[in-house]
Amino acid sequence: MADGAGAGPSVVCLAGGVGGAKLAHGLQAHIGERLTVVVNTGDDLERHGLLVMPDHDTVMYTLAGLANRELGWGLEGETFEAAGMLERYGEETWFRLGDRDLATHVVRTARLRSGERLTDVCRALQTSLGVAAAILPMTEHEVRTEIRTADGWLAFQDYFVRRHQEPEVLDVRFPGIDRASATREVRTAIESAKLIVIAPSNPIVSVGPILALPGVRAAIGDARMHGARVVAVSGIVGGKALKGPADRMLASLGHEASALGVARLYADLATDYVVDQVDATLAHAIGALGLRTHVTDTIMSDDAARARCAGEVLRIVAAA
Amino acid sequence: MADGAGAGPSVVCLAGGVGGAKLAHGLQAHIGERLTVVVNTGDDLERHGLLVMPDHDTVMYTLAGLANRELGWGLEGETFEAAGMLERYGEETWFRLGDRDLATHVVRTARLRSGERLTDVCRALQTSLGVAAAILPMTEHEVRTEIRTADGWLAFQDYFVRRHQEPEVLDVRFPGIDRASATREVRTAIESAKLIVIAPSNPIVSVGPILALPGVRAAIGDARMHGARVVAVSGIVGGKALKGPADRMLASLGHEASALGVARLYADLATDYVVDQVDATLAHAIGALGLRTHVTDTIMSDDAARARCAGEVLRIVAAA
Repeated sequence: MADGAGAGPSVVCLAGGVGGAKLAHGLQAHIGERLTVVVNTGDDLERHGLLVMPDHDTVMYTLAGLANRELGWGLEGETFEAAGMLERYGEETWFRLGDRDLATHVVRTARLRSGERLTDVCRALQTSLGVAAAILPMTEHEVRTEIRTADGWLAFQDYFVRRHQEPEVLDVRFPGIDRASATREVRTAIESAKLIVIAPSNPIVSVGPILALPGVRAAIGDARMHGARVVAVSGIVGGKALKGPADRMLASLGHEASALGVARLYADLATDYVVDQVDATLAHAIGALGLRTHVTDTIMSDDAARARCAGEVLRIVAAA
Repeated sequence: MADGAGAGPSVVCLAGGVGGAKLAHGLQAHIGERLTVVVNTGDDLERHGLLVMPDHDTVMYTLAGLANRELGWGLEGETFEAAGMLERYGEETWFRLGDRDLATHVVRTARLRSGERLTDVCRALQTSLGVAAAILPMTEHEVRTEIRTADGWLAFQDYFVRRHQEPEVLDVRFPGIDRASATREVRTAIESAKLIVIAPSNPIVSVGPILALPGVRAAIGDARMHGARVVAVSGIVGGKALKGPADRMLASLGHEASALGVARLYADLATDYVVDQVDATLAHAIGALGLRTHVTDTIMSDDAARARCAGEVLRIVAAA
């Protein structure tokens, strides 16, 4: 599977859910265990007393080859018997949990309650599912993204799942982030990476919490001092988000809903920027921000496209 | 469904799992919400961080008409997707949890963790499933039955499920019972009952913990002072347990594995005793213990047989 696994420089990918998972899957196909994915935990929530980690689990299931590609969340061939019973018991089931997915949350919660670290619990789950890469929750602390709408502040999944991302986003905050910090595993992975990839995830609510986390920007700075390249991949293609509400969210928060608008958010951090070929005309303006711009096909519709796009990203460092 | 529900005297049934559930189901068919079932909690256990209550849930599923009659445990038409995933994560899965059953344990555990009383949580679950009777856990305290075998003391389900009831039972204890007490709901139900039925459950490990619980014998004594009848139904028929290891357990603990042996265990508490017609010859010896003996068909193979047997038990009081 991994043509360069075990040898060569290590790569870190900062990722949210689906978009990040696809690119990470492509990267893993090339470099296997040399890949570390740092996932946003701001989207995590408690359902029925269980810790649910949508971004971590989307990445884990995708890298394990178990993700449900049709739904865009959860496991392939998933069943929903438990959810029906939860409903019967009068539980709110707007956040739908499949039967096998439920097992993930049950095991994780049990192991956390027994005193294990979140990072260790997640690593063990990944290993059980045969994931080659390491997927690291960004922090051991509780950080919970909230969205301000006309109705006031909402928990992230309340906005994202329950209200189908319909309300206009007026502001975003990450309660708990000031007291939180990146784990030592996250810092070490970033500091020692030769390549840090910012996945085409939502820059505000997926990558945003990771970059806002105390310790992460400093670690990226250290890596750059040692010659690492920081490559951001635009999740906005032709002015539209590939998935989710990132384009509307950028606009309502005063940013330009384009690959250029996203580039501006990463300009102080990245060395390189990857845009889709439909945005080739933006290359000059992005270059003016001080970013080396790379134009390629970033639509990762199948495994081959994921590996191809990831290969382009890896070539930036191989060529460096 | 219930031909006398809402009016008439209240009935309490002390029950363990399957045998108790069948008789309780028959009683519910006659008297509906006038029935209170007090269930053993000594068989409860924690699996994957969740509180599992085998006796409570067997009675609840049975009274809700959802029990799996083929397996003798769990829900009808149950699936096991989550269990497969738990196994993949390296969890011990000798205590098999179905997907819908898992939802029960998840909800119960979440509500307990949020500070609700076990009794209230269980009552809400029962109501959600449309159970007419009240099923009361015997106590809010943790009591855990243990079995001494040649290999030492085992947790009850370790003996019962994991080791398939194969080891010889050398002793039984109920750690925690001295510090535990019957709930006020249990005491009130027993004290105000006109009829207290001891179900044909295992007298040692199903009914045993209920009777050993501080507060229960006193409440039964109060009820008898007010004229209540206490009717025990033998779970040993023709010298064999209808289900489970009660016969071998009685023998290895020095009791007679017969309806008479069971009658001796209840002689100080019961006023009446119901034996199957195959044990009619024991009626005289049982009568000599001071128990009014009733002979009927106690094999409850289908709903009609359950209702018929329960009807016989209820007639004891109607005739009194």
